[in-house]
Amino acid sequence: MDNRIVCTGTLGLDTTRTPFRTVENVLGGSAAYFSYSASFFVPVSVISVIGEDFPKGYLELLSRKGIDLSGVEKRDGEKNFAFDSEFSYDLYARKALKTELKILENYLPNLPHRLVETEFVYLGTFAPKQQLHLLEQFESPKLVIADTIEYYIENDRPALMDVMGRIDGLVINDIELRMLAQTHNLVKAAFTLLEKGLKLLVVKKGEHGCIIFSEEGAFPLPAFPLENVVDPTGAGDSFAGGFFGHIARKNGTLDQKTLKEATAYGTIMGATAVGDFSLNNLLNTTPEKIEETFHGYRRMLFF
Amino acid sequence: MDNRIVCTGTLGLDTTRTPFRTVENVLGGSAAYFSYSASFFVPVSVISVIGEDFPKGYLELLSRKGIDLSGVEKRDGEKNFAFDSEFSYDLYARKALKTELKILENYLPNLPHRLVETEFVYLGTFAPKQQLHLLEQFESPKLVIADTIEYYIENDRPALMDVMGRIDGLVINDIELRMLAQTHNLVKAAFTLLEKGLKLLVVKKGEHGCIIFSEEGAFPLPAFPLENVVDPTGAGDSFAGGFFGHIARKNGTLDQKTLKEATAYGTIMGATAVGDFSLNNLLNTTPEKIEETFHGYRRMLFF
Repeated sequence: MDNRIVCTGTLGLDTTRTPFRTVENVLGGSAAYFSYSASFFVPVSVISVIGEDFPKGYLELLSRKGIDLSGVEKRDGEKNFAFDSEFSYDLYARKALKTELKILENYLPNLPHRLVETEFVYLGTFAPKQQLHLLEQFESPKLVIADTIEYYIENDRPALMDVMGRIDGLVINDIELRMLAQTHNLVKAAFTLLEKGLKLLVVKKGEHGCIIFSEEGAFPLPAFPLENVVDPTGAGDSFAGGFFGHIARKNGTLDQKTLKEATAYGTIMGATAVGDFSLNNLLNTTPEKIEETFHGYRRMLFF
Repeated sequence: MDNRIVCTGTLGLDTTRTPFRTVENVLGGSAAYFSYSASFFVPVSVISVIGEDFPKGYLELLSRKGIDLSGVEKRDGEKNFAFDSEFSYDLYARKALKTELKILENYLPNLPHRLVETEFVYLGTFAPKQQLHLLEQFESPKLVIADTIEYYIENDRPALMDVMGRIDGLVINDIELRMLAQTHNLVKAAFTLLEKGLKLLVVKKGEHGCIIFSEEGAFPLPAFPLENVVDPTGAGDSFAGGFFGHIARKNGTLDQKTLKEATAYGTIMGATAVGDFSLNNLLNTTPEKIEETFHGYRRMLFF
């Protein structure tokens, strides 16, 4: 067995409007950012669905990086998942303008048989029932980490709780955590979820870094102070890719050292993603640059 | 010369209402929190003003800690500075209900002659002209750090810019920094101020920690993940006390190691202050507890 991660999530066409520039129909979606970021660390397979209008070039861009797309279903006659949104001047608040979601509605992720023994599974942003459907196809995954969003916390809580009972780790932002645990204090909210059986909780706080909660306790790590953020889209998924990628590379160990290193790699991949639109800045980085930044990050925190 | 810090700022009577408990007329004010916190590191003198109704017990509480109050002017027949405020459920947003400010209006801080050679000066929250008036009385201070608040940024910018031109360091929160530099990105805002001659900028982000900017670059450090915050009042001033206290103890060095250590001590003193109302938790800590927490904080960030 290699240390492959199988991930599910969207392959999308993003139209992103910022006060500085607009890009149209660029490659986006949680599975795109996650898989590209994680592929710097371990082999990655994507399980997703695309429409007739999804450019072949985008698939090539992923497969050139060695990402296995044999689990990506192409539907002729259907439109691809697309997201048109606009950022405020501070690049913080995002307003959805138009979404093309229909292709996702009756999609159920199918795992190619040769991947059923995969040990590492990432359930990116999809409906809880889709996440569960994929998860049930693995024989005995060693480490399953999921993401979710406000929409499912508000509208699909019972199914989401079902997912929560069957995963090891959850990657979530601070607002989502407060909603999910129904309490304001982040630390209390996190321990509420750990008491329900979760082994690992990664709370992303954007420019403020993140807090990792596990049986090793709670520890916070800051983000890089960034002067030039071009497009925050995909920061969280790229973070998750670096984070899980490093853990998988370390055979799924969840000791404190590995978790801190993984957080550092996640932070680096997230900071890389936001420096340009789409996956552009991820395309331009290298394993050497990532290592160099890793050592700089560690030095920054050492005293 | 000892490594004494002379600080100015308010000695106040706080009435603080939280959804959980209300306390009335407890000891507060920026000079109270700053001086108590800093006095764990170096000798401290306070330059401030109090009214007839300021309890003798509060002065004793400070002087028992060795804080020099010979520069505190008592005005008979005048009411002490008082601040009545209410916190929202999340202990984040604070609403001012009533303030008694009259005593501060025509106050000009006077430095006792035997303190004119002091090397370390902290200009706590006061009007810029009051900060300047005190500053001009020192012969040749080695390191001057100031604080300010939204009110003076909005209503007294020219005088504040005068202060900025004559200090070495500024301690400020993220909202205030954005207002002061008139730009949203924190990093850009910070470098704008450094280019204008500031040597040191400490940007406090509450529960998200802080970022230190100096000629050594920008580095962020996280806060402790706290489960029990009782009253956020004084967190920033207590942070500043630990931060400047450690730097003064190290003779005013601003190298990266000292700045990181100072940030750690500031973080610890801030986290201590918010664990109870008024200075209660600061009263209960010890140099040994502070050192122990310092080593824990350093371990938390090491990998």
